[in-house]
Amino acid sequence: MEAPSERTKLKRGSTRARYEREAILAILDEALFCNVAVDVGGHPAIIPTAFAILGDQLYVHGSTANRIFRAMRDGSECCVSVTLLDALVLARSAFHHSVNYRSVVIYGRAREVDDEVEKRAAFDALIEHVMPGRSAEVRAPNREEYLRTLVLAIPVDEASAKVRTGPPVEEEADYALDVWAGELPLRVVAEAPVADPQTKREVPAYVLARYEGLS
Amino acid sequence: MEAPSERTKLKRGSTRARYEREAILAILDEALFCNVAVDVGGHPAIIPTAFAILGDQLYVHGSTANRIFRAMRDGSECCVSVTLLDALVLARSAFHHSVNYRSVVIYGRAREVDDEVEKRAAFDALIEHVMPGRSAEVRAPNREEYLRTLVLAIPVDEASAKVRTGPPVEEEADYALDVWAGELPLRVVAEAPVADPQTKREVPAYVLARYEGLS
Repeated sequence: MEAPSERTKLKRGSTRARYEREAILAILDEALFCNVAVDVGGHPAIIPTAFAILGDQLYVHGSTANRIFRAMRDGSECCVSVTLLDALVLARSAFHHSVNYRSVVIYGRAREVDDEVEKRAAFDALIEHVMPGRSAEVRAPNREEYLRTLVLAIPVDEASAKVRTGPPVEEEADYALDVWAGELPLRVVAEAPVADPQTKREVPAYVLARYEGLS
Repeated sequence: MEAPSERTKLKRGSTRARYEREAILAILDEALFCNVAVDVGGHPAIIPTAFAILGDQLYVHGSTANRIFRAMRDGSECCVSVTLLDALVLARSAFHHSVNYRSVVIYGRAREVDDEVEKRAAFDALIEHVMPGRSAEVRAPNREEYLRTLVLAIPVDEASAKVRTGPPVEEEADYALDVWAGELPLRVVAEAPVADPQTKREVPAYVLARYEGLS
């Protein structure tokens, strides 16, 4: 499959590139947050932030007082990056040390979400993305909370993924070196839910399911 | 403590700000990679990449063929971001959902490391950062590998950290809602080391120590 644009086309390590929608969406689905970079007054700034996918859009939200979200709203070009770190890859040579990872980069401009129905759907999706089952249970945003929150949509369109898997790749001569080589797999796990001191309820089944899914 | 510059000063959530060097270095020490954003031909681009701290500098390295590392070398302003995600914070209202995290942002311009001794030290530090004890054992970079690798140093100077801990913070009235609230703690763990199919050695003690430290 071809890259959707010149800047999403991987120039190096191109065997690691993935441009298929399913590959991109699977990585986004697993990631718990993304990083967004925009130009803010003449220099780039990064914000790590929650996100959700609805249809062919990536949604983020933030305070109307935040200069990075305001720059996004005002039409600055965005770069969204998501990284899942899967393993440290330990080669026999310093040079060939690497990591196994799955990453996505999306370029585009954000659209401010004004429509009430879309904004509510985005709020729900942002919660569902990290905690499926929760959005129906919580108090929905009130008018003031909606006004204080910018919701922004970026098309998942000019997007590419990059995936590295497997053992180190060495110079042929280095395989003879008497140095251990291999991978140290990594993953994100959850620990047992910690109840708010003022909560009276039992931990809900969907929270336990998420905990188990991440352990 | 005061912010080192206007752009590192946290405007909102300023009780979460940390400007002390030790707080910043502790977060950097635990992080396995960083994200760097630079302007590349008129738009921001992010690269997730390995890093190391030596003295008061953050070192990254990459191919001389990579346009993001080349833009850094050529003097583009950089934003470096590191995020440790510690928990999902589940509030009774959609609006007050949050995460516990420790993050660092560093602004600055990169300096290309040409000096052979500093470049070698940076290579070692990049390996030691993720796998303490390994750099002495592996084959050092040869001349061609040095020439193909840009090593860049960014001062850890214009830096700030942001930390959120603890349970959700709700609107007073929302504490009465019959909705479970609390935290789902998260952490990165290692799984048992996977030997390269061609390795003949036992897993070294320092790899096992790192595995145990991350489990």
